[in-house]
Amino acid sequence: MDGPTVGRPSRPGGAGTPANRLGAAVVGLGGAVATTAVAGVELLRLGICGQDGLPLAARTDLVPYEDLVFGGWDVSADDLAKAAHLHGVLEPAHIEAVAPQLQRLRPWPAVADPGYCRAVTGANVVAFDGLRERAERIREDLRRFRDEQDLDEVVVVNLASTERLPDPASPALASVEAFEAALDDGDEAVTPSMLYAYAALSEGMAYLNFTPSSGAGVPALTRLAERRGVPVAGKDGKTGQTLIKTVLAPALRSRALRVEGWYSTNLLGNRDGRALEDPDSLASKTATKESVLDSVLGYPVEDHKVRIEYYRPRGDEKEAWDNIDIVGFLGRRMQMKVDFLCRDSVLAAPLVLELVRLLAEARRRGESGVQEQFGFFFKAPMTVGGGVPEHALHRQEQILLDWLDGGTSAAGSGRS
Amino acid sequence: MDGPTVGRPSRPGGAGTPANRLGAAVVGLGGAVATTAVAGVELLRLGICGQDGLPLAARTDLVPYEDLVFGGWDVSADDLAKAAHLHGVLEPAHIEAVAPQLQRLRPWPAVADPGYCRAVTGANVVAFDGLRERAERIREDLRRFRDEQDLDEVVVVNLASTERLPDPASPALASVEAFEAALDDGDEAVTPSMLYAYAALSEGMAYLNFTPSSGAGVPALTRLAERRGVPVAGKDGKTGQTLIKTVLAPALRSRALRVEGWYSTNLLGNRDGRALEDPDSLASKTATKESVLDSVLGYPVEDHKVRIEYYRPRGDEKEAWDNIDIVGFLGRRMQMKVDFLCRDSVLAAPLVLELVRLLAEARRRGESGVQEQFGFFFKAPMTVGGGVPEHALHRQEQILLDWLDGGTSAAGSGRS
Amino acid sequence: MDGPTVGRPSRPGGAGTPANRLGAAVVGLGGAVATTAVAGVELLRLGICGQDGLPLAARTDLVPYEDLVFGGWDVSADDLAKAAHLHGVLEPAHIEAVAPQLQRLRPWPAVADPGYCRAVTGANVVAFDGLRERAERIREDLRRFRDEQDLDEVVVVNLASTERLPDPASPALASVEAFEAALDDGDEAVTPSMLYAYAALSEGMAYLNFTPSSGAGVPALTRLAERRGVPVAGKDGKTGQTLIKTVLAPALRSRALRVEGWYSTNLLGNRDGRALEDPDSLASKTATKESVLDSVLGYPVEDHKVRIEYYRPRGDEKEAWDNIDIVGFLGRRMQMKVDFLCRDSVLAAPLVLELVRLLAEARRRGESGVQEQFGFFFKAPMTVGGGVPEHALHRQEQILLDWLDGGTSAAGSGRS
Amino acid sequence: MDGPTVGRPSRPGGAGTPANRLGAAVVGLGGAVATTAVAGVELLRLGICGQDGLPLAARTDLVPYEDLVFGGWDVSADDLAKAAHLHGVLEPAHIEAVAPQLQRLRPWPAVADPGYCRAVTGANVVAFDGLRERAERIREDLRRFRDEQDLDEVVVVNLASTERLPDPASPALASVEAFEAALDDGDEAVTPSMLYAYAALSEGMAYLNFTPSSGAGVPALTRLAERRGVPVAGKDGKTGQTLIKTVLAPALRSRALRVEGWYSTNLLGNRDGRALEDPDSLASKTATKESVLDSVLGYPVEDHKVRIEYYRPRGDEKEAWDNIDIVGFLGRRMQMKVDFLCRDSVLAAPLVLELVRLLAEARRRGESGVQEQFGFFFKAPMTVGGGVPEHALHRQEQILLDWLDGGTSAAGSGRS
Repeated sequence: MDGPTVGRPSRPGGAGTPANRLGAAVVGLGGAVATTAVAGVELLRLGICGQDGLPLAARTDLVPYEDLVFGGWDVSADDLAKAAHLHGVLEPAHIEAVAPQLQRLRPWPAVADPGYCRAVTGANVVAFDGLRERAERIREDLRRFRDEQDLDEVVVVNLASTERLPDPASPALASVEAFEAALDDGDEAVTPSMLYAYAALSEGMAYLNFTPSSGAGVPALTRLAERRGVPVAGKDGKTGQTLIKTVLAPALRSRALRVEGWYSTNLLGNRDGRALEDPDSLASKTATKESVLDSVLGYPVEDHKVRIEYYRPRGDEKEAWDNIDIVGFLGRRMQMKVDFLCRDSVLAAPLVLELVRLLAEARRRGESGVQEQFGFFFKAPMTVGGGVPEHALHRQEQILLDWLDGGTSAAGSGRS
Repeated sequence: MDGPTVGRPSRPGGAGTPANRLGAAVVGLGGAVATTAVAGVELLRLGICGQDGLPLAARTDLVPYEDLVFGGWDVSADDLAKAAHLHGVLEPAHIEAVAPQLQRLRPWPAVADPGYCRAVTGANVVAFDGLRERAERIREDLRRFRDEQDLDEVVVVNLASTERLPDPASPALASVEAFEAALDDGDEAVTPSMLYAYAALSEGMAYLNFTPSSGAGVPALTRLAERRGVPVAGKDGKTGQTLIKTVLAPALRSRALRVEGWYSTNLLGNRDGRALEDPDSLASKTATKESVLDSVLGYPVEDHKVRIEYYRPRGDEKEAWDNIDIVGFLGRRMQMKVDFLCRDSVLAAPLVLELVRLLAEARRRGESGVQEQFGFFFKAPMTVGGGVPEHALHRQEQILLDWLDGGTSAAGSGRS
Repeated sequence: MDGPTVGRPSRPGGAGTPANRLGAAVVGLGGAVATTAVAGVELLRLGICGQDGLPLAARTDLVPYEDLVFGGWDVSADDLAKAAHLHGVLEPAHIEAVAPQLQRLRPWPAVADPGYCRAVTGANVVAFDGLRERAERIREDLRRFRDEQDLDEVVVVNLASTERLPDPASPALASVEAFEAALDDGDEAVTPSMLYAYAALSEGMAYLNFTPSSGAGVPALTRLAERRGVPVAGKDGKTGQTLIKTVLAPALRSRALRVEGWYSTNLLGNRDGRALEDPDSLASKTATKESVLDSVLGYPVEDHKVRIEYYRPRGDEKEAWDNIDIVGFLGRRMQMKVDFLCRDSVLAAPLVLELVRLLAEARRRGESGVQEQFGFFFKAPMTVGGGVPEHALHRQEQILLDWLDGGTSAAGSGRS
Repeated sequence: MDGPTVGRPSRPGGAGTPANRLGAAVVGLGGAVATTAVAGVELLRLGICGQDGLPLAARTDLVPYEDLVFGGWDVSADDLAKAAHLHGVLEPAHIEAVAPQLQRLRPWPAVADPGYCRAVTGANVVAFDGLRERAERIREDLRRFRDEQDLDEVVVVNLASTERLPDPASPALASVEAFEAALDDGDEAVTPSMLYAYAALSEGMAYLNFTPSSGAGVPALTRLAERRGVPVAGKDGKTGQTLIKTVLAPALRSRALRVEGWYSTNLLGNRDGRALEDPDSLASKTATKESVLDSVLGYPVEDHKVRIEYYRPRGDEKEAWDNIDIVGFLGRRMQMKVDFLCRDSVLAAPLVLELVRLLAEARRRGESGVQEQFGFFFKAPMTVGGGVPEHALHRQEQILLDWLDGGTSAAGSGRS
């Protein structure tokens, strides 16, 4: 283990372990979202911040935020205080308040393949000889994290920069057996995010993919999750523009206002944005953004365009500008413009905290495989068997609340 | 009867009356919303326009739009072709296509009290001696309309310019008996919109209030509706800014994003806007707009401001600009701006058509009194016994669809 | 001559020709800008429209708009009434009012090279064997236009869709002699817009380039203009977003507000927009847009991005959305958003009319070569000897007005 | 003297006084603009901040910023470090860097008349018996400031919250003699800002009015300025929305684009905004904002509306949203929206610094009375003899630069 973790002081040895010591092993621990999540838990513990942005703060049936313990990998070896300072997401006074805790947290060396993410690199990387060896190293990291921190449960969380998309038809991704063989053969179809997902599932740990990368979203790995009896959730956190899109589009549909065109542009200047300067990573990102609208509306929008621009002056303060062309009664045209001046990591971090708690709850309930009922949090919700996901936010919320209130994940399988 | 009506050619005499010849007697027939609704029905009949903007176009259990027959009052005696030309809502080619039908429709003389709506006046007004006489005259108009047009059902629709609000505590409005006495005494508490509502209910006709005025929204008249067994619905059509507000606010709540301030401004240049230059009418309008937000969010927003401005260059093309100040995780602030370049009458007219059809359906089902399940269409939904209304659009939609699919109006009484 | 022209009825033969019968031979006569300009002159003649949008309407020293006579080429053979109807720029009532005049005007067959503009094609094209033959054909068209219409002066106007940029270092474009040889050799360096410019200059006719294409903007042709004693002006009309940019940027500079980033996006759905789907044409367009800002501010803006999107719902109603990131006193950041909902051809057409009149005036004054003092109208003003152009709108305006009031074009050569 | 001043350490006694020790005596020293200006000078002195936002930073012929010495009155006795913290304009790190200097600066007790500014009050007020006594007290304060700080020159700067407007026709304001009598009689026509202006002029000190209040803008006081040979400048700093208006309007005029309507709304949450909750103060503010547009355009805009709203979530971060309705060629309508997310004090403070330096320069040149050539900085520029002021920013800038480069103030008197 390359660095200590934060989340809760080491327990005094000896006495019985509480049931809810919950670890989050984060791929991309030094990124803006992860550092915001980690700092947020510390600030909540100190009572410095309230529960704004945490949708499930009022639920008493989930592991308390204060019981989360963080660790993880990053291509940068900076401790999280330094990372938080660089990202500029938090108020300086807040960073200062939890600086001692953040300084103690240093990312483990990442297992990064520059071929899959060319725009972001760093020095904190371990050498390896092949895919199998890399997967083993990740599994070792996870076991060490669990044991050293005396954790009851670990959720592996993907917050790394977006990879380019794999070939979905690759035979190596079609079954568990083919995937195992691909690991031994060094098959290029296996991306870094798959490696981490494979390692998590192999260790029996739940897996959360908050990015547009593939993660566990291939048949080989969803099957592995089912076999190993562990829940997985993803993908691509729904935070800004797509959030608004899945709110406005159902409303326009309910009023029978026809969408003739929807132009979306995003300006962002953080590490995520820089990664998207790689056209392959960008394609991966826009693909999930574009698929949403037609699904919600129930008809194809001819001119739906989504642009994502790396724009330095903004840093983590993302701007999402949307223009919507609408046709109403008697063919009359109208327009709507939405300008969301948001903060990427501020919107994302609390959702990550909720999802880690929800995956622990799913594990407690014995759920395994894809957890459709968590679609509320995602731009491209994974579905069982590749079904069409529900995208409308209000219906996703209802499905989630029904599950929490005692329904089963089956509640999420039907589309109202 | 001062002028003919449109909606369906006079039936050939003799044979059995179809069950669905449905009249709409509109207060403010010459206004932009009413002329758009009337022209729309004619354009639908001719197959010139499609069903954009009509949320219930796919329902086969409602009276077809083509079976609607229009008549009504207005302070202007212009025929509806001339009115449509003046309002500038429709495309010139569309007005031309239905000009013969619109020219045949001339509003009946209005029973207008300038004391309640000072900014809009006209010459098409009948003389009268007192409230009772005025109510009788309205009832005569309604009976003549029904008989001459051979209607199975009539719904009275308030689309007149906004009145100033009455004193809700006035004893004259507290019971049917007091109201009857007030009519005889010429009590100032009785506003014009109440007179029309009273006349409708007394004739056993359903009543729809699409404006912010009082209409049937006082105890005396909701009680009368129950006694007479007729349904009423209102008030204040939810078309533009408030529509968006009741879509975005539930979403912000579902993500626990706290609303610190919400500034709404409206620019509109049509007859409605001119009426709102009267501060009393404006107060009536902003009151219903402002009450919505806190109800949806579940907490008071300290800085919620709503401005409505009469702004001539825009005509019927309303602009609603909203700025929302949001607090997210760790107290970080964000902003959202929404600019809705809409068309007031284009959004409103199809909702009026749907409501007339829904009130006919409620009548068919034997419903009486306030129809809570139609709250989907209103900024200030009337509730049974003055309960807190549901404002979130998606929940209102579900309540409406449940009722249509066989539930009862009770479905609308509980708040999820 | 393939079709008649409009602008003024044929003069009764015989008597002395007035000095101001001014022809405009337009490349792209059937496009939205040209049809709007032609219709505009007819509407002005009929007194149906006023002088909004015409900056020099009050000048009595220029040829009256009513004395303009139009002709020109287009790849579409549609008459201008049909073209105007398709473009949807004018109000239907306006098209109708001048339909007879517009119907009489049919574009001549174009000399189009599909290799230079792949996205827009049409059937109204003449066959040819080589560059020299094409140039001769254009010159014939011009002579026939002048003689048949009995014109005192002809200005050739480029309003064709944007070509891809030529190689500026090509030896074929470096001198008149090399260019003549290139015409004989069929050198690929010669683009269609150069051919039309060459033909104009060879006929001693002034040349106006309102597009981002090359036109007369190569050494060979500016030299030819000087030799032949004819004025040329260009390039790329400054109508929407760049207009605003050259207004706001000088103001920000005058207040010492530092521009850290400027993100510009354009949505347009007309024929121009479709042409820009060709990446080479787009590069040509964005190049002129991007060069402006640093020049006005006096320092390089690190994040200046310009996006142009073909977006069908909007037709000719262009939208230009700008976001500007500003740094003020003590390093504090601010933002400005500008959303210009404009009409491309409505902004462009009157400027074309003014420029045709100005080039006639320059001719009258004996000016030849590049007319720097007309930079007010252009995104990428041509300069004598390739000097740095003035971009600030208010200074450009002053230079133009000084020249009109008797100064010489030298007034435009110095930058204040 | 109730507190020390900052700006430059006390000079070692004895030696010859430098010519450029320049005092600024600020009415409203504890306000957001003044504290930002004072902190800015300290940050410039320490080299922590650069010269963004300072339009005349490159001029070497003006007193250096570092030679400014601040003092002044405020109704709050808070030292300026505390005030800066409350206003939230500066970055926390910047406040910290100059906290020692700011803590040493405590406002003198104000001479405030609650009748003229009801919404803002404070405890740091001196008792007095009449207008004459109050004026004398202000003069004493000014003399003490000059002597204790050994200042070569003092400029009195009005940055207090907006007063309600006086009756301009009051005889008491028509001549110096009448004004003197009014002071003795306690005439209500004399407002607090006039008292400070009178005191400044009586002491032979230049006077700057950066607010919409009256200040020296009445005949009695401009005459007094001329008699005493001191320059005065004002009024109402042009920082945000009006700045943009006087940039865009000239451009629209230069393109002959007719403005049919201009709707401006302002959201601001600082002390200035709170003061404007007093309808009289608001009227004073909007009056100067509204008069500008027609003057620049040269014709009356029928629908020009300006709204100012006190909106707490925003603090000092003002938002100015403008909608402009434009008519172009052939009567076609277009719209422009401008949303300026600015910072009131960040824009205003550097202009105050420049104006103090410019008034010192005017004094050095022997100018007296109204300094028209400083109109560049003001929403409602004072003019000699009440002439129509120039509002177009680029012409104002030229007039200022001409004066600086050796022209006289007469350069500002003619309108191009």
